Amino acid sequence: MTWQDSYIAVDWGTTNRRAWRVEADGEIANSFADDLGLLAVPEGGFPAAAAAIRQRLGDHPMLLAGMVGSNRGWREAPYVPCPAGADALAAAIAWIEPGYTGIVPGVCQTGEAGADVMRGEEVQVLGAVALGLAPPDALICHPGTHAKWIRLHDGQIARFHTMMTGEVFNLLKTHSILAPQLTSQVLPDKGFLAGVAAAFAGQNILSGLFGIRARYLLGEGSHEPASFASGLLIGSDVRAALASDTARSREVVLIGRPDLCALYEAALAAHDVSSRRIDGNDAVLAGIRLITEML
Amino acid sequence: MTWQDSYIAVDWGTTNRRAWRVEADGEIANSFADDLGLLAVPEGGFPAAAAAIRQRLGDHPMLLAGMVGSNRGWREAPYVPCPAGADALAAAIAWIEPGYTGIVPGVCQTGEAGADVMRGEEVQVLGAVALGLAPPDALICHPGTHAKWIRLHDGQIARFHTMMTGEVFNLLKTHSILAPQLTSQVLPDKGFLAGVAAAFAGQNILSGLFGIRARYLLGEGSHEPASFASGLLIGSDVRAALASDTARSREVVLIGRPDLCALYEAALAAHDVSSRRIDGNDAVLAGIRLITEML
Repeated sequence: MTWQDSYIAVDWGTTNRRAWRVEADGEIANSFADDLGLLAVPEGGFPAAAAAIRQRLGDHPMLLAGMVGSNRGWREAPYVPCPAGADALAAAIAWIEPGYTGIVPGVCQTGEAGADVMRGEEVQVLGAVALGLAPPDALICHPGTHAKWIRLHDGQIARFHTMMTGEVFNLLKTHSILAPQLTSQVLPDKGFLAGVAAAFAGQNILSGLFGIRARYLLGEGSHEPASFASGLLIGSDVRAALASDTARSREVVLIGRPDLCALYEAALAAHDVSSRRIDGNDAVLAGIRLITEML
Repeated sequence: MTWQDSYIAVDWGTTNRRAWRVEADGEIANSFADDLGLLAVPEGGFPAAAAAIRQRLGDHPMLLAGMVGSNRGWREAPYVPCPAGADALAAAIAWIEPGYTGIVPGVCQTGEAGADVMRGEEVQVLGAVALGLAPPDALICHPGTHAKWIRLHDGQIARFHTMMTGEVFNLLKTHSILAPQLTSQVLPDKGFLAGVAAAFAGQNILSGLFGIRARYLLGEGSHEPASFASGLLIGSDVRAALASDTARSREVVLIGRPDLCALYEAALAAHDVSSRRIDGNDAVLAGIRLITEML
């Protein structure tokens, strides 16, 4: 069994996982997705869970990426410092069984650019370049609970920073005084764009958010509050990311959930920055393939 | 019984209340503070609660300020639009019993300056001017769950805006991924000032907050995380408030909890803006006295 024959690729996150059997020619022979994320695996249950994956997809070498390599996962795969490419990731794989079951490490940043970490996104980003879907010097955005903005240079992860955009929105929606006003689905609608415009005009988040409460109390409900709040947060996120991008990109590559990509796309378009979307599954598969080619 | 003789002043908030009997000469004859805020008053229980206040402090005319005048309080006292002074507040008192029991209204702002509301702070602010402790054209900051920045012009509340600074900090401390790192008491220490400095340097809140998580994971714990997070939020708050203050104040009057005032004081000092503190109780009493003089 070698990585040049069939192998299994797994993207194992906190709440979900996806697994594929990839043939020698790169074709997907079989795959599944379920909600057996880290949180659903009992103490000491990872060997059995991995064996169950092989029962479904066949007895092949297996590479796992994502939070499975965190201190809450199967085994901690220490972060590789950026700048980092596929070769550095391949060299730092945490092997459960050498050549047979390995965990791809995350990437970290220290020093002047600011402390930051990622785990899972690095595989997607490098995969997007390998697919030719992202240029080797792209600015990539991975929206989510903790949105990542990743600057590629010569096909390597040069620097990145993480925004708590999704988590702050969820906190507001679930636990804040605004919760009763933030019940609707967020869409890239007029309210969202008004929030984005306010953020780009320099509106402070802490102040802009209270405006939602004030307009509600005063009966001034012109915008859909959930969309406006999301627009304010994502607008602030996008504005800061573009401002700190020294290469002044006018195009951003988006990888992630389609509904979130649509929101970032709208926010970027409002700032005359074009964007293209890449499917997350395609990117993971290409990234893991790239790493197997270095084994 | 007239307002020129003894009267009772009540500052009745959501979770606490304070009540004073004020003599004709302005001296405090008796007072108490307890935790019978709005949330502790049963449906229809306000008349009995007010009667109990009179049993303790005497049968005198009574003015109530704060959230007791909100739609979750005793009776809604509609907001007075700014610019607003004590005369406008006095004219808009919601009388439970005319001349005997009245609720001071809050103040609202609409139009270009942005929708905003306050309820309780207006009495303190006007009281601070009446005491001669705040100049009639002061920039006043009232830190808290929803921090208020109030611009006075000719002794009137000219405009203001509210920041969700305290609430966002509490959400992060209680419910976010940062919660395990935000357990310490916040002090105006080195970590706090580092957060303030980051905010003044333009660090985005959403990004700066994740840095706390990243430094923790990477073992780069140079600053106390709770102080840093608070400094980042308060720094962002102060920076936005100073930037939007068209009068470019170099002095801010702080009214509120001493521990919060100390934090804002430190953040302002780091930006070369001086501040002075006014005791909230003194300000409430002076504000209510000012209003009684117009009855």
